Amino acid sequence: MKSLTEYLWFETPTRRDYINITAQVEALVRKSGVQEGLCLVAAQHITASVYINDDEPGLIEDYDDWLEQLAPHEPISHYRHNRTGEDNGDAHLKRQIMGREVVVPITAGELDLGTWEQIFYAEFDGRRRKRIVVKIIGE
Amino acid sequence: MKSLTEYLWFETPTRRDYINITAQVEALVRKSGVQEGLCLVAAQHITASVYINDDEPGLIEDYDDWLEQLAPHEPISHYRHNRTGEDNGDAHLKRQIMGREVVVPITAGELDLGTWEQIFYAEFDGRRRKRIVVKIIGE
Amino acid sequence: MKSLTEYLWFETPTRRDYINITAQVEALVRKSGVQEGLCLVAAQHITASVYINDDEPGLIEDYDDWLEQLAPHEPISHYRHNRTGEDNGDAHLKRQIMGREVVVPITAGELDLGTWEQIFYAEFDGRRRKRIVVKIIGE
Repeated sequence: MKSLTEYLWFETPTRRDYINITAQVEALVRKSGVQEGLCLVAAQHITASVYINDDEPGLIEDYDDWLEQLAPHEPISHYRHNRTGEDNGDAHLKRQIMGREVVVPITAGELDLGTWEQIFYAEFDGRRRKRIVVKIIGE
Repeated sequence: MKSLTEYLWFETPTRRDYINITAQVEALVRKSGVQEGLCLVAAQHITASVYINDDEPGLIEDYDDWLEQLAPHEPISHYRHNRTGEDNGDAHLKRQIMGREVVVPITAGELDLGTWEQIFYAEFDGRRRKRIVVKIIGE
Repeated sequence: MKSLTEYLWFETPTRRDYINITAQVEALVRKSGVQEGLCLVAAQHITASVYINDDEPGLIEDYDDWLEQLAPHEPISHYRHNRTGEDNGDAHLKRQIMGREVVVPITAGELDLGTWEQIFYAEFDGRRRKRIVVKIIGE
């Protein structure tokens, strides 16, 4: 069994951001030499998500509006979590909607994705360095 | 390490539908010959979900109502994504609630599921051919 | 390839509860002897979740309020599923928001988690024995 472990770092200029990381993950699959296996991509911070969907700017704005409607950032005092001095209570909720991780098949040495599937890093409490892990196992 | 990769295709007669695919996935596990491993079942279209829950018709109607409440199909113009000419903005949101994929253990050559766990394909923008991938790895 | 399969049982005194199970999962990773691989932790009941987030009491109350707002327990008659004689329709919905499973990398013999990542069992219909599965594969 082969394996590869790599970490990707992000520091977004805004509180919320959505970054297409498909090419970076594909490069790691090639680096791993795995032909048949699984590729796990997971946020290691708990106010961010890794998810798969379309790279279409209107959709990303729709997601952002919808998440803000389901778990508004303000009022800060709405969230008990913010009594710890944080202001990111909403970000912990938004991340649960969008998910922590994706697992993608590796088939014939490549990410086995549908035509429109793109891997995204979604940041809900940015402006600081945060990382994801990519773990590849297979043969 | 053994592996198996198969694709299952669906074309639902209605926009939204919920299909129990447990037996099809179990058949692939047997075909793979894997005794101990992992089985990934993932939608390869971004307006559909693979999820695990109960095969109970009332519950499925509850899910459908709830998703329609959280991300209504209409008005179409509510979603920026629909400015691309699509009418499926809501489907991209519903899919995030229900999830893209499940990973199920394979133990002693079988899907290791709880009593009521059933694997579902959930379609939110049907009436066209769409596929899922089943990737099995193990020994 | 090595593998380990274990089941953890829970019976919470209240309908809803949130239990940090990170230490139990870590112990299983050590028991498995796997140095590089994947660890799947999944609920085997469909009214419970396994998720990763912060072990902060205020946040857990925020989650509980938010889930109750998105899918209220009462009125019981609101859910068609409850016509089967159950009163847990809401629990099936809450579980979809929080998720069924997490997949965590194992790196150098340990769970490869971010600083604040903690694995939780979330119960939405407790007061009876329910289980999760931990499946570890790797080398």
